[in-house]
Amino acid sequence: MTTQADAIKRHYETLSLRVDEQIGYIQLCRPESLNSMIPAFWFELPEAVHALDAHGDVRAIVISSTGKHFSAGMDLSVFMDMAKSFQADPARRAEKMRRQVLELQDSLSSLEKVRVPVLAAVQGGAIGGAVDLLCACDMRYATRDAYFTVKETQLGMTADLGTLQRLPKLIPVGLAKELAYTGRNFGASEALQAGFLNQVFDDQQQMLDAVKGIARQIAANSPMAVSGTKQMINYALEHSTAQSLEYMATWQSGMFQMEDVQQAMQAQKQRQAPSYAPLFGMQSDIRAMHKQND
Amino acid sequence: MTTQADAIKRHYETLSLRVDEQIGYIQLCRPESLNSMIPAFWFELPEAVHALDAHGDVRAIVISSTGKHFSAGMDLSVFMDMAKSFQADPARRAEKMRRQVLELQDSLSSLEKVRVPVLAAVQGGAIGGAVDLLCACDMRYATRDAYFTVKETQLGMTADLGTLQRLPKLIPVGLAKELAYTGRNFGASEALQAGFLNQVFDDQQQMLDAVKGIARQIAANSPMAVSGTKQMINYALEHSTAQSLEYMATWQSGMFQMEDVQQAMQAQKQRQAPSYAPLFGMQSDIRAMHKQND
Amino acid sequence: MTTQADAIKRHYETLSLRVDEQIGYIQLCRPESLNSMIPAFWFELPEAVHALDAHGDVRAIVISSTGKHFSAGMDLSVFMDMAKSFQADPARRAEKMRRQVLELQDSLSSLEKVRVPVLAAVQGGAIGGAVDLLCACDMRYATRDAYFTVKETQLGMTADLGTLQRLPKLIPVGLAKELAYTGRNFGASEALQAGFLNQVFDDQQQMLDAVKGIARQIAANSPMAVSGTKQMINYALEHSTAQSLEYMATWQSGMFQMEDVQQAMQAQKQRQAPSYAPLFGMQSDIRAMHKQND
Amino acid sequence: MTTQADAIKRHYETLSLRVDEQIGYIQLCRPESLNSMIPAFWFELPEAVHALDAHGDVRAIVISSTGKHFSAGMDLSVFMDMAKSFQADPARRAEKMRRQVLELQDSLSSLEKVRVPVLAAVQGGAIGGAVDLLCACDMRYATRDAYFTVKETQLGMTADLGTLQRLPKLIPVGLAKELAYTGRNFGASEALQAGFLNQVFDDQQQMLDAVKGIARQIAANSPMAVSGTKQMINYALEHSTAQSLEYMATWQSGMFQMEDVQQAMQAQKQRQAPSYAPLFGMQSDIRAMHKQND
Amino acid sequence: MTTQADAIKRHYETLSLRVDEQIGYIQLCRPESLNSMIPAFWFELPEAVHALDAHGDVRAIVISSTGKHFSAGMDLSVFMDMAKSFQADPARRAEKMRRQVLELQDSLSSLEKVRVPVLAAVQGGAIGGAVDLLCACDMRYATRDAYFTVKETQLGMTADLGTLQRLPKLIPVGLAKELAYTGRNFGASEALQAGFLNQVFDDQQQMLDAVKGIARQIAANSPMAVSGTKQMINYALEHSTAQSLEYMATWQSGMFQMEDVQQAMQAQKQRQAPSYAPLFGMQSDIRAMHKQND
Amino acid sequence: MTTQADAIKRHYETLSLRVDEQIGYIQLCRPESLNSMIPAFWFELPEAVHALDAHGDVRAIVISSTGKHFSAGMDLSVFMDMAKSFQADPARRAEKMRRQVLELQDSLSSLEKVRVPVLAAVQGGAIGGAVDLLCACDMRYATRDAYFTVKETQLGMTADLGTLQRLPKLIPVGLAKELAYTGRNFGASEALQAGFLNQVFDDQQQMLDAVKGIARQIAANSPMAVSGTKQMINYALEHSTAQSLEYMATWQSGMFQMEDVQQAMQAQKQRQAPSYAPLFGMQSDIRAMHKQND
Repeated sequence: MTTQADAIKRHYETLSLRVDEQIGYIQLCRPESLNSMIPAFWFELPEAVHALDAHGDVRAIVISSTGKHFSAGMDLSVFMDMAKSFQADPARRAEKMRRQVLELQDSLSSLEKVRVPVLAAVQGGAIGGAVDLLCACDMRYATRDAYFTVKETQLGMTADLGTLQRLPKLIPVGLAKELAYTGRNFGASEALQAGFLNQVFDDQQQMLDAVKGIARQIAANSPMAVSGTKQMINYALEHSTAQSLEYMATWQSGMFQMEDVQQAMQAQKQRQAPSYAPLFGMQSDIRAMHKQND
Repeated sequence: MTTQADAIKRHYETLSLRVDEQIGYIQLCRPESLNSMIPAFWFELPEAVHALDAHGDVRAIVISSTGKHFSAGMDLSVFMDMAKSFQADPARRAEKMRRQVLELQDSLSSLEKVRVPVLAAVQGGAIGGAVDLLCACDMRYATRDAYFTVKETQLGMTADLGTLQRLPKLIPVGLAKELAYTGRNFGASEALQAGFLNQVFDDQQQMLDAVKGIARQIAANSPMAVSGTKQMINYALEHSTAQSLEYMATWQSGMFQMEDVQQAMQAQKQRQAPSYAPLFGMQSDIRAMHKQND
Repeated sequence: MTTQADAIKRHYETLSLRVDEQIGYIQLCRPESLNSMIPAFWFELPEAVHALDAHGDVRAIVISSTGKHFSAGMDLSVFMDMAKSFQADPARRAEKMRRQVLELQDSLSSLEKVRVPVLAAVQGGAIGGAVDLLCACDMRYATRDAYFTVKETQLGMTADLGTLQRLPKLIPVGLAKELAYTGRNFGASEALQAGFLNQVFDDQQQMLDAVKGIARQIAANSPMAVSGTKQMINYALEHSTAQSLEYMATWQSGMFQMEDVQQAMQAQKQRQAPSYAPLFGMQSDIRAMHKQND
Repeated sequence: MTTQADAIKRHYETLSLRVDEQIGYIQLCRPESLNSMIPAFWFELPEAVHALDAHGDVRAIVISSTGKHFSAGMDLSVFMDMAKSFQADPARRAEKMRRQVLELQDSLSSLEKVRVPVLAAVQGGAIGGAVDLLCACDMRYATRDAYFTVKETQLGMTADLGTLQRLPKLIPVGLAKELAYTGRNFGASEALQAGFLNQVFDDQQQMLDAVKGIARQIAANSPMAVSGTKQMINYALEHSTAQSLEYMATWQSGMFQMEDVQQAMQAQKQRQAPSYAPLFGMQSDIRAMHKQND
Repeated sequence: MTTQADAIKRHYETLSLRVDEQIGYIQLCRPESLNSMIPAFWFELPEAVHALDAHGDVRAIVISSTGKHFSAGMDLSVFMDMAKSFQADPARRAEKMRRQVLELQDSLSSLEKVRVPVLAAVQGGAIGGAVDLLCACDMRYATRDAYFTVKETQLGMTADLGTLQRLPKLIPVGLAKELAYTGRNFGASEALQAGFLNQVFDDQQQMLDAVKGIARQIAANSPMAVSGTKQMINYALEHSTAQSLEYMATWQSGMFQMEDVQQAMQAQKQRQAPSYAPLFGMQSDIRAMHKQND
Repeated sequence: MTTQADAIKRHYETLSLRVDEQIGYIQLCRPESLNSMIPAFWFELPEAVHALDAHGDVRAIVISSTGKHFSAGMDLSVFMDMAKSFQADPARRAEKMRRQVLELQDSLSSLEKVRVPVLAAVQGGAIGGAVDLLCACDMRYATRDAYFTVKETQLGMTADLGTLQRLPKLIPVGLAKELAYTGRNFGASEALQAGFLNQVFDDQQQMLDAVKGIARQIAANSPMAVSGTKQMINYALEHSTAQSLEYMATWQSGMFQMEDVQQAMQAQKQRQAPSYAPLFGMQSDIRAMHKQND
């Protein structure tokens, strides 16, 4: 099946983007620099994620990397730039710093907010900012040689792009604290045992094949159901059970309809894969409405 | 010891209910239909739970099933009924849908709200709605051959009766998401490792004996202490530590008294099992007060 | 390096306190009474913790014990005192009880609030109130023979000093409930698997050496970074991700400066350990300001 | 127009219930006892409210009273009953007390949860429990001679059925505190100025006519719109603006449909009153589904 | 004083934008169509607001209108477009509806999020969507003939763009409910008394002069102080006092510096107006950093 | 009646403290310096409040001032001290600033946390920090010539000691914002109308007499009831209604007893003032228990 979304294929400075059989693939593409996160990365990532979000036919995203390491984290040049700007009035500098941190956080939060599941596939080291990125994904898979480091602590700073906010909700709190206070390496098998990783693989190719397989399983399900599932789980993690159940019922009142259920049942009877309609065919925003009226 | 509560023994269409030595047993009893959740189930379950809650002498509940599988989940007839009712004005249908989902959720939430601990004992498959039910129990035990499936995703719908709200707080988030997005089976040993199950047993009889043993340990403790413990843990899971500590202190100001402590100390000295008074002897509601006045 | 903080060395009735190479050591010192928590313990502990907090040069706290067991929990004499005071008007008694519980809780919460990480090292039994204490620490380490018990349940009371509020956020909920409802022992290896412990050691000396090693790793990092990390993780555990990210950005606007980063970078270049300035040199409170003005 | 709902007309011991032109009228009917709240009142009120809620054609509720005073509040006999039951073990008595208070609170909260707006019309005194009741209504109207008293404070107790929880969100906090701490009378004109009352009238008949007029205005609007409005405002009062907007959008996704909008537009064109379909024609609960299947 | 920001002067289809003496003026400019909110309005408004936000020299925003009425609310054409799109699968339509409502809400929320105070000046009618807009402003001023209507209720729908979320926190709850349930007009003097308006004026010119005067008073204060004040108040409205105080202290740790205080003190001594530096001189975003590096 | 508490009479540098007929009086006593808040004030205030809190017989607190103005707010010397300390490493300075602000905030929050109602009586100006103080009181009364100013804004800083956190919950939000953004004076009659003040009086003596009268009315009520009322209202302002009702029921389970009710009823019968026992006779803390054991 060729769809509109399959047409997307873009090359950015720091990552490549393509869609294949309803799965969006984002791949870090600066292996020669250990995929360090230079300024361009921070706006290219959300741009790529939004491009996938806006195409109704994309049903899952796989984020992976190239070279020996997943990513060396924040590029030194970002700190250099910051240092330069540290000469103004300290209050105004503080305000600028605050805006900048919020902007960098938002870049990674795009992975949490996009309507489809995001699967990360990690080889080698994932350092500092890369751990922030991984914590914002839905699921994490890695090779046996992968390792993770909350490096910021050893660099004289507090990690500020999401690791401290998300990691203690992904693994046992006592372990999360030890990792963050010491900045020590955290290997793949310890990470699997702790629940940070869903599965560990022998090598990168095996991992990529397996992760693609899981993404396909997801893509084979109703996009309404999967997107609702992501929203409901993320909501539940931040609200009481009673609030979450009430939200679920209200969500379901509009989103639960018989079309996809009947599609699923019929497919089951005929022992075929069900074929669900895409989530939406075209952009649904107000600018589109405006143009339409012209 | 024979108590008032031991007198309860009822047969419903979808489950049986009995009390034995201060433990309430609820057992699904439609093995020939894989204990699928037909409309009757949804009001019989809370009715049974409330009956146990209202008798001051019940100190723990064990919920188990019969036949090869724990439960096949929501019965197809429920969806058929819903489909029929989908022809009205869509807004009013949405409102009806919302009320119906809230009602079904409430049915399972009775297990969370009942003042005594609920232990679930699972054999074979627990599919869809059955996972929603298990997530609302306090503890889960299973046989080696048990498995769990968030089946809704593969049926074209978003699970809406509690699994998405409770599961991500019971097991590592990344795993909960994978299970819910794919709808794949989740076996007993994976579930034990993830913390979903407390223990796994070789066969159903061994499991039922062991679970009964744990329930008896609980029933041997002060019912004031156990009921307070359940309320405090559930409260803590939904509030900050500071708020929970404050609530604890206020709770304790009325609920902590020396009677049960002295009972416990004396029993310890005499190397006997302590004998605590039941939580209440009779219904405490306002209708009772009204009748009393006549 | 000798610092001002190294001068602290005090002996209380229930614990000893010393500072060595920027690490504060609190050790329970009543092994002959199984380190039971007598009234003096409850005000000596926060006093010791505040003393360490107030000295800018302390960068981590290790809490350990002496004798065969870590601590037998609340001393019986506390209950005896309470029992005595139970003869007044029940409303006023309730109010008094509430104030007392809040005060005891606050004593342990000092471990959560102190600006530096607290590492607990446990040998033998940790019973009742001792589990409340351990749950308020950042990380827990133990010997192979260690075990933990929410003993209160078996003593006819609801644990009220933090275990029920913190434990269900440290280990799988179903397990936390089983332990609290039954009051059964919870051994070191089960506790390690459940995430309650970070590591288990063969004997106490090996444990104390290893824990000291981890504390040193922490002390070698920037005290600004470590203290910010503790605050951010504790905040994140009680707020939504969005709220926590916003708080992080605001925190960083004042707390992130280049001094420590440059210190770290230079040290790295010179392959030396970085030498960070202490968090503060003198007390920063308003009384100090007042005296200064005289 | 005669509808199914118009058929409801019941007499309880403490109140009368009737439906007229889509408006439900609940009237306290024990003027000879100053409409004091005897045990029967506490279960008759929610029963009446639920009866109105369950009939899709009811679109607003007016609650009023008879005799010189709206209500003298909790009947003395309730306290007498409580006093009698105060001889058991204090912990179990505390647990019983807690359940009883929750039950009485729930009785009044039915006014907050019912899907239609509740308008209260008050003459004379509204004392103690009557103020709790009025705070749970959507809007309050009164005669010039009406007055309100948080009487509990002067009777040696803390008001426990909702006044302290709701009043400080209805009027300026400083005033709410003064009224609750002193227990002094709060007259109609002070109450109007403070925002507790929406309007004040010269006498009861004038008030009842005006309130009926407002109820009719409400009943003339789409019942989907009005019920959605009540739910959204109550939700907003307890959540952040961002959470409330998100909930609104999700609600609207199912509940906003063109049927009622077109009905409204057509009526406007033809200068007629719009005629909206009732919210639902029959009970939507799971027992109904069960019976249907027989 | 001429500043960079003074250069902004743009004409959109639905509004005009200019900056004068550090105050941004947004004016609705389709009086011939009663300033109804056509699709273009919904993206032009946030675009204009963001333009003002991005220029460090703007210190307050005044939003006003032209013609007899402030705004007739949502343009009919928007509903027509929606109606057209209502033929797809109802679940996907619901999802589209949800996204669209969120987008429209975000458009108005830009007024709440912009770092400077927003003052609204209202003449004549403000209907439906216009009330949603006004509720998102910081302060509201009006002419004597102004009136407000939650018109949606009378049009068969639930107001979904912020009125129900914000109005009950701006005026007494009972009044907010009456207005929303009935859809009746709410006049300027009733609105002043209820706290919805800060002040009422005889005619539009007098109002515009007075509002400009207030905006100037604000612009004369430190932009750091004013922007911090807006953020702190908005935060406090959605958090507990304890949380808000903690956030305030953390905010202050970076944002409170002596520069502006000294500026203020010196100006006071010299009986001059203080001259504060703009909040920032150039864009602070990550794209800027990227370009800089080229 | 002479009681233990009546014995308290202390003179501090910045305020005087005395107890008369169960009412604690705190009076600012530096009229010659306009009662500006010098460093000593910030620890003397909480010390005085805690002294009153610790004596079970005190039932209300009145805080007033001397001279032409209530208070000129923060003394300049505090800023001067801060300025001096601004030369260290900016990160460590930020941390110090944060600790200092928290300490000053805590000083005023003692008025919110003390178990008895606090009534403020204001003459003349209340500037900057004085408004922070007044917002933390339960009720505010003033003379006709009183006025209030959020002066910080005009001094180049964001008010950081509670005004921005509490004022927008005491008066209409739009007005609170105008006052805080402009820093303009807010007169007694505007403040009365807005709900900030409970009552306005012609002169200070008349005010002090009236406030004393209200304090006596409060002191005549059961101290259990009044203290419970304060705690419940403060809790309700920060939690949902459902949470607050649940807390109320749990509170009541221990705190509601028949002693005070019977006292009240008997007094009413005998047309006498009831005579309630003090809240507690002696300090209830753990140090007391410790000493007792010696």
